[in-house]
Amino acid sequence: MNAAIVGVGLIGGSFALSLKEHGIADRVVGVDNASDNRSRALELGLVDAMLSFEEAVEEADLIVLATPVDSIPMLAIKALNKISSQQTVMDMGSIKSELCEVIEQHPKRGRFVATHPMWGTEYSGPDAAERGAFTGRTVIVCNGGQSDPDALDSVIRIYEKIGMNILHMDAEEQDLHSAYVSHISHITSFALALTVLEKEREEDHIFDLASSGFESTVRLAKSSPKTWTPIFLRNKYNVLDVLREHIHQLQVFRRMIERDDAEGLTAAMEHANLIRKILK
Amino acid sequence: MNAAIVGVGLIGGSFALSLKEHGIADRVVGVDNASDNRSRALELGLVDAMLSFEEAVEEADLIVLATPVDSIPMLAIKALNKISSQQTVMDMGSIKSELCEVIEQHPKRGRFVATHPMWGTEYSGPDAAERGAFTGRTVIVCNGGQSDPDALDSVIRIYEKIGMNILHMDAEEQDLHSAYVSHISHITSFALALTVLEKEREEDHIFDLASSGFESTVRLAKSSPKTWTPIFLRNKYNVLDVLREHIHQLQVFRRMIERDDAEGLTAAMEHANLIRKILK
Repeated sequence: MNAAIVGVGLIGGSFALSLKEHGIADRVVGVDNASDNRSRALELGLVDAMLSFEEAVEEADLIVLATPVDSIPMLAIKALNKISSQQTVMDMGSIKSELCEVIEQHPKRGRFVATHPMWGTEYSGPDAAERGAFTGRTVIVCNGGQSDPDALDSVIRIYEKIGMNILHMDAEEQDLHSAYVSHISHITSFALALTVLEKEREEDHIFDLASSGFESTVRLAKSSPKTWTPIFLRNKYNVLDVLREHIHQLQVFRRMIERDDAEGLTAAMEHANLIRKILK
Repeated sequence: MNAAIVGVGLIGGSFALSLKEHGIADRVVGVDNASDNRSRALELGLVDAMLSFEEAVEEADLIVLATPVDSIPMLAIKALNKISSQQTVMDMGSIKSELCEVIEQHPKRGRFVATHPMWGTEYSGPDAAERGAFTGRTVIVCNGGQSDPDALDSVIRIYEKIGMNILHMDAEEQDLHSAYVSHISHITSFALALTVLEKEREEDHIFDLASSGFESTVRLAKSSPKTWTPIFLRNKYNVLDVLREHIHQLQVFRRMIERDDAEGLTAAMEHANLIRKILK
């Protein structure tokens, strides 16, 4: 099987490595509009060749879209316009409603499989690609009923070979849930970094104090704005919904601290401790 | 050297292990008001014996206070009341202003060394104690000028043997900085857990979606209210100060998303990316 990865960054690059690692693809070609990424992906051996979008779509059995989410719907249409009924197109983006809406009426809609593998790090670009990524994680497959059974099966089989757990969801449902478990974590992390940097202008010591707790909470603030600006804006209403709830929870904490409400604080934290069951 | 650890939980238990590991203490005894902790600390081999507070203070060269922060000032006074001028008392708590104020006029104030080692995990109790804890981290020594030089030196030498970097600070300064780099991370994590749990009442899927980003941001929400309620309340004004700034930053994010302000979001995240220099 020949695969083409459009966007050879953190996600696309790691997926290219997985396809080779698990013997899924014989040949993996890459497409990227940044010349730095093109040469780096080759140097790192993420792909066998870098081609133009048109060349890659022509030769690959599987076309994988792994670019920032604002570019995925148009690339999906362009790829579907060109492929035959033997080829499959899939994406790996973090949001799905707009994409599924845009491709809904396309005559070759059945050849598209919309997926969101729940894996990532705070790094970006080809150098951030990791061997062994995705394994043991969950992948959300969206609106699977709109994909041709053979296209859907082939993509699911790939994810299963990589060792991922498959979860089926509607596009709208997936966007809401991703806002809760991924997008909000990034916003709180960015905001926490800005809070500390704001203070650090006046003080000198913060540099020395990074404890493990701080590091893990603020780690995601190293993430790329190129990835995250389009996610927040394209998933706007879900993200705003979660953000409002999160700000509310922080205000409740603030009021309890203001009132020296030890019992209230303890009860809130005991409830928050239930997150253990989600993190297992 | 004989050491007594008062509070054989995450911090005290790990410090007991470090004292043995680095050949600093020949004998380490423990004190704990929870009978479960007493038996568990012995079973785990964290300490050589469990004694009463009075017995431990009598026999130890170094008395280490590692209990929740609301109990430290009184234990400090009680220990200072009993010791000779050959003994030293130190604490490992996360806040220092109240403690240093309470012991300030004590005739044996010089025998006390106030320290805050910047290490911890989201777990608590004797079972959470770890070998190799503290090494490579920073420890803040507060108001060192108020300690007798020999007491201060002996404590600093211990931390250096464990491989910690020593940072001297005023108690007030340390409490402000700890609010920024440790206390606020815990509040955002607790609030994030509550945000997600609130939603999860209505939905079923959140369980399956925990991605690595979510896990690292929300990890601290597993922390013990017994540890954190007194920290938030005893460091009230600093914590409120940081919390206000953090809520403000989140509100700025919210407004930018509402207005589709891609440029503003990108600029804010690029600025947040500067946190890299703090996390190195």
